[in-house]
Amino acid sequence: MEEEKNLTGRPINPGGEQWIEKHISCLDHGFVKLVDYMGNDTEIARAARVSYGRGTKKVQEDNALIRYLLRNKHTSPFEMVEIKLHCKMPIFVARQWIRHRTANVNEYSGRFSIMSNEFYMPSPDVLKKQSEENKQGRDEDLSHEQKQRVIEILTSDFSKVYTDYQELTEIGLAKELARIGLSVANYTEWFWKIDLHNLFHFLRLRLDPHAQYEIRVYAEAISQIVKDLCPASYKAFEDYILNSISLSQQEIDWIRKIVSGIIHISDDYVEEHTPFEHEKSKKIKKETNDLIKKLDKLGFML
Amino acid sequence: MEEEKNLTGRPINPGGEQWIEKHISCLDHGFVKLVDYMGNDTEIARAARVSYGRGTKKVQEDNALIRYLLRNKHTSPFEMVEIKLHCKMPIFVARQWIRHRTANVNEYSGRFSIMSNEFYMPSPDVLKKQSEENKQGRDEDLSHEQKQRVIEILTSDFSKVYTDYQELTEIGLAKELARIGLSVANYTEWFWKIDLHNLFHFLRLRLDPHAQYEIRVYAEAISQIVKDLCPASYKAFEDYILNSISLSQQEIDWIRKIVSGIIHISDDYVEEHTPFEHEKSKKIKKETNDLIKKLDKLGFML
Amino acid sequence: MEEEKNLTGRPINPGGEQWIEKHISCLDHGFVKLVDYMGNDTEIARAARVSYGRGTKKVQEDNALIRYLLRNKHTSPFEMVEIKLHCKMPIFVARQWIRHRTANVNEYSGRFSIMSNEFYMPSPDVLKKQSEENKQGRDEDLSHEQKQRVIEILTSDFSKVYTDYQELTEIGLAKELARIGLSVANYTEWFWKIDLHNLFHFLRLRLDPHAQYEIRVYAEAISQIVKDLCPASYKAFEDYILNSISLSQQEIDWIRKIVSGIIHISDDYVEEHTPFEHEKSKKIKKETNDLIKKLDKLGFML
Amino acid sequence: MEEEKNLTGRPINPGGEQWIEKHISCLDHGFVKLVDYMGNDTEIARAARVSYGRGTKKVQEDNALIRYLLRNKHTSPFEMVEIKLHCKMPIFVARQWIRHRTANVNEYSGRFSIMSNEFYMPSPDVLKKQSEENKQGRDEDLSHEQKQRVIEILTSDFSKVYTDYQELTEIGLAKELARIGLSVANYTEWFWKIDLHNLFHFLRLRLDPHAQYEIRVYAEAISQIVKDLCPASYKAFEDYILNSISLSQQEIDWIRKIVSGIIHISDDYVEEHTPFEHEKSKKIKKETNDLIKKLDKLGFML
Repeated sequence: MEEEKNLTGRPINPGGEQWIEKHISCLDHGFVKLVDYMGNDTEIARAARVSYGRGTKKVQEDNALIRYLLRNKHTSPFEMVEIKLHCKMPIFVARQWIRHRTANVNEYSGRFSIMSNEFYMPSPDVLKKQSEENKQGRDEDLSHEQKQRVIEILTSDFSKVYTDYQELTEIGLAKELARIGLSVANYTEWFWKIDLHNLFHFLRLRLDPHAQYEIRVYAEAISQIVKDLCPASYKAFEDYILNSISLSQQEIDWIRKIVSGIIHISDDYVEEHTPFEHEKSKKIKKETNDLIKKLDKLGFML
Repeated sequence: MEEEKNLTGRPINPGGEQWIEKHISCLDHGFVKLVDYMGNDTEIARAARVSYGRGTKKVQEDNALIRYLLRNKHTSPFEMVEIKLHCKMPIFVARQWIRHRTANVNEYSGRFSIMSNEFYMPSPDVLKKQSEENKQGRDEDLSHEQKQRVIEILTSDFSKVYTDYQELTEIGLAKELARIGLSVANYTEWFWKIDLHNLFHFLRLRLDPHAQYEIRVYAEAISQIVKDLCPASYKAFEDYILNSISLSQQEIDWIRKIVSGIIHISDDYVEEHTPFEHEKSKKIKKETNDLIKKLDKLGFML
Repeated sequence: MEEEKNLTGRPINPGGEQWIEKHISCLDHGFVKLVDYMGNDTEIARAARVSYGRGTKKVQEDNALIRYLLRNKHTSPFEMVEIKLHCKMPIFVARQWIRHRTANVNEYSGRFSIMSNEFYMPSPDVLKKQSEENKQGRDEDLSHEQKQRVIEILTSDFSKVYTDYQELTEIGLAKELARIGLSVANYTEWFWKIDLHNLFHFLRLRLDPHAQYEIRVYAEAISQIVKDLCPASYKAFEDYILNSISLSQQEIDWIRKIVSGIIHISDDYVEEHTPFEHEKSKKIKKETNDLIKKLDKLGFML
Repeated sequence: MEEEKNLTGRPINPGGEQWIEKHISCLDHGFVKLVDYMGNDTEIARAARVSYGRGTKKVQEDNALIRYLLRNKHTSPFEMVEIKLHCKMPIFVARQWIRHRTANVNEYSGRFSIMSNEFYMPSPDVLKKQSEENKQGRDEDLSHEQKQRVIEILTSDFSKVYTDYQELTEIGLAKELARIGLSVANYTEWFWKIDLHNLFHFLRLRLDPHAQYEIRVYAEAISQIVKDLCPASYKAFEDYILNSISLSQQEIDWIRKIVSGIIHISDDYVEEHTPFEHEKSKKIKKETNDLIKKLDKLGFML
C-alpha cells in the first residue's frame, strides 16, 4: 500500500506524504503509523484568513500568522488539520491515552477477537524505583539483581495468564469473560483520529517529563510526524507552549524583587525563603523547586 | 485551484474528488463548497475491522458491514471520515447550525472585517403564514399583495441598516460596534469541519421537514456531496435513519390490537380513540397525527 | 454523611435525595453511589420553556412537554440535569464505560496509589459459552465441571498476579510499573459526572441485551436512581427509546405487503423470503431474525 | 422563589447559596442569574483524592491540593463542579459566547416566540474609534458630536426594524421569517450550564482586555459568582492563569541575556533590537510590545 499513489485535487502535504503507512516502532511490540491526514500549515492560515476577510489576505505571511494565532490562543484554525493514526500499545497506556476525549477511536475488541500473546516487558534500563518526591513517578535505578527479579516475575505472570486464557477459550468460555485474567500489559490496538489543536494538547501533557515513560514514547513518535506535517505550527508549538515558562502572580512578584536588588538569590536562599506560604514548613517543596528551575532557565542562578 | 491535481499516498475517494472546490449555490447569496475530505466507505469498514482482528477480515463485504454498523448503532467507524466545507449563509441560519457542537469552525469576523452588503431576501414562493399547528413552522401562502409588502419592508430594512453601517464605519466607530445594527439576515461565512457520524446527526435534524426551510437548503446541498463521498454509508443512513419509522411502546401496543383485529381503524377512529391519554381532550393532536402518518406508511389506512 | 441535611435555595429533588450516598452493590466488589445531582423534571420543562417565551408558559403540563421533547429529539433541555456518581468496577468494565466521552471522570490512579486485592470473579450462573451467532456475546451454560475449572483458573491467576504485584512494590519498583502485571479484572473506581441526555444515551447502549452482562449490571443500578430522580423523563425514555421499535425503509415496505395481504408470513416464510438481499445466501441471518422479533412484537406472528 | 429553602443531603455551598436567583445586571437590558450549582472547593479536592486512594487522604490541605492541581494542569477535578445560569444578552454577544462548545444551552427561539423590543444601545463612554494597532478592538474616544450621531443612527435602526417586525407578524408572516430583519443588537436569553474547568477557560478568554467589552461585562458578572462559589479555586485561577505571564523560548533566551548583563534594555532598545525576526521590519510590533509589557511587569524597565 505504501507505494501506490493517486491523483487528488485536495490540498497536499509533502511532509505528511512521506509518513503514510510508515511504521514507527514504540516499546517492544507497539507502533504508530500515519493512515491519513487532512490539511497543512497553509490550510491553517487559509482558515484563519476567513476571519479577516478579503482586505487582509496576504498581509502577513503564513508563518507569522501561524505564530500569531498560537501565541494569542486563537486555536480554532489548528482544528482544521486532522490526522488519523493506527497505533498499538499496552492496555495501561491505552487507558491513559483514551482520557483525551476530543478524538475518534476504533479499538480492537476482546469480546469479538482473540487477544494476542504480546505483553509489554520493560527493558532493564527503564526499571526504576518509586520516586519519593514525585508520587506518580520513577527515579533511581534498581540493582542488577532486582531488575532480574522484576523481569522474572513479569515473564512468569504474562506466561501463566496467557496459557490460562488459551485454556479458557478452549473450554469454550465466551471471549468477553476469558480475557478478564489478562494483564494491563497486554497489547491492544486502535485507529485514532484527532485534530491538530487537540493533538497539541495531548503532546503537551504526554511529552512532559511527568508523563509515564511508556506513553511518552508514543507522544515522541507522533511528534516526529507532526513536525513534518505542519513544520511552522509545530515550531510555534515548541516556542510558545512546550519550551515556554509560565510565571504565577507570586513568582512575578518575587522576580521583581530580585531584579530590583531587594533580594539576592541562591538555591539555599530560595529554599529557605520560598515565596509560597504553604511550603514554608514542608520537607518536599515542589513549587519551590519548580521556581528554582525557572530562575535557572532565566539566568538568575549563577 | 479546481484543476490542479497532485499525487498522494492517502486513500482516494473518486466520489469526493469531483466535488472539491465546486460551488453549490444555496439561497440567494450563499453556497456550500467541499474544501477537503478524509476517508471513504472502504476506510470505514477498515476501521471497523480493527475491532474484529485478523480472523474476521473480509468475512463480510464492506457494504454489508457498513449496513450492520449503522443498524446496530456502532457509530465510531463513521467518525473516521471527515469533511471540510466552506459555507456562506445568513446569520440566523449560522445560529441554528452552530448548535451542532461536535464540529470545528472558523467564522468570518465582524470585529476584524467589513460585513458585506448581502442580506437574505426570501423568494416569494417561500413567504408563508405562521402555522397554527406547528408553532415553529410556516404553512399556507400569503396573498400576492402581502408578499409584495413583505419584500418591500425587508428591502427597506436591509438598505437602511447597511447605509447606516457604512456611515458608522466612516465616522470611525470600531467595527465591532458599527455592526450591531446589521440584521440577522446579513450573510456570514465559515470553514466547517465535521466527521461523518456527527454529520449524519446534523442531516437527520436539518433535512427534517420541521427544520426551517433556509437551513434545509444547506442540508440538502451537503447531502449531495455525502451521497457521492460515501454512497454505501449514505444509503444505509437513508434506510435505517432518514426513512425509518420509530414506534413507541404505546404505538406498538395499538398496532398489536389492529393486527389482531380487536380494533378497526380509520382517520376518524384514530383521532377519537387516540392511544395517547394527554391528547384525548386536545384540539391539536400532534402525536396522534404523527401516528396516523405512520399507520398510513405501514399500509393500515386504506 | 448520609444523615446530615442542610438548607438550600436550589431546586430540590425528593426522588434524588433518597439516593444520596446510598450504596448500590454491583457484581462482587463494585458499587454505584449518587454523590450529587442538579435539577429534576420540572427544571427540564423550565429550561425548555425559555425557548417558548413568556406567552406559552404553562400551556402544556410538564409531563406532556417532556414527552413531546423526547419524542421529537429536542434533547438540549435534558442536558440541564446533571448527576455525579461514585462507582467501583473492574478495569475491563471501566474500559467500555470510558468510551462515553461526554462525561467528567476522576479515576483512581495506579501510578499514585496501591491497587487493591480485589478482582472480579464471575458467579457460576454467568459463566457461559461463546455465542456462535453473536460474535461478541455469550450463550449456553458451561457444564458444572467446566465452571469449576474456570473459577479455579481465574482464582489462581488473580492470586499469583497480586502476590507478584506485592513483591514488585516491596522491591521498590515504581508503582506505575509494578501494576502492569495486574489483570483487567482488577477493580478501579472513579467519580463520574454526566448530564441526563448523555446518560440516556449511555443507558440505551448499556441496558441493551447485547451489552456485556458486567456493564449492564451498572447500567441497571444507575437506571434505578434515574427512575426516581426524573420519573417523567425516564418514563418517556422507556416509551420512546428503550422499548421502541425502529423500522427501516425495507421493513416498512415489507409490512405494507403483509398488511395489504400480498404476503402471508410465518417464521419459515420470513427466513426463506428475507427482504434483505445480502442475507439471502447466509446461514446466520441477523437482520432477518431481528425483523422476526419486531413482527412478533407487532402481533403479526400468530 | 428567592426565599424558599429546602433541606438537602447534597454538598452545600454557602458562597453559592447567596447568589441563587439573584439578578446581576449586564449592559442595558441583560443579566446573569445563578439558577443552580453542584459542588464546591471541598468536592474538587474530594474528587482529586479518589486518584490518590486511601493512604493519602488529608495529607495535603484542600487549598494546597487545589493549587497543586491547577498549577500542574490536572484539570479533571475542576470538571466536578457545575453551574447553571440564566442569561440575557444581545445576539452578537451570544454568537461569541456559543463558540464555547463544552456547555449546555437552551436558547429563546425566534421561531416559536415573539422577539422583544429590546436592543443593546452602547452608553456614550464605550463608543470608541477603531483601533489601528488592534484590528479587532477599539481605542480612542469619538468626539461628543460623533457619539451623538452614532446613538441617533442606532436608535433609528432599532426603531425601524422593530416596527417593521411588528407589521410583518401582523400580516401573518411566519415568525421564523419575520425576525430576519431584526438586528444582532436585539436581546436573546438562554439557560447555560458548564463545568468549572471549562468555565475557567471561558473566563480566561472573555476577561481578557482583547475580548469585546460587551462580553467582558458578562464574564465579570460570572466571575463574581465563581469567586464566592469556589474561592480557593478562583484564587488559584487568578494566580496561575489570569495574572500569570507566559514566556516563549525566544523571550527566555532574551531575558537570560539581560540578566547576565549582555544587553541593557529600555523601551527604545527593545523596539529596535526586537528578538522576533518577523517583526524587525514591521511598523506595528505586537509581539515586541507584549514583551515590553512583560519586562515591565518583571521589573526590568526602570
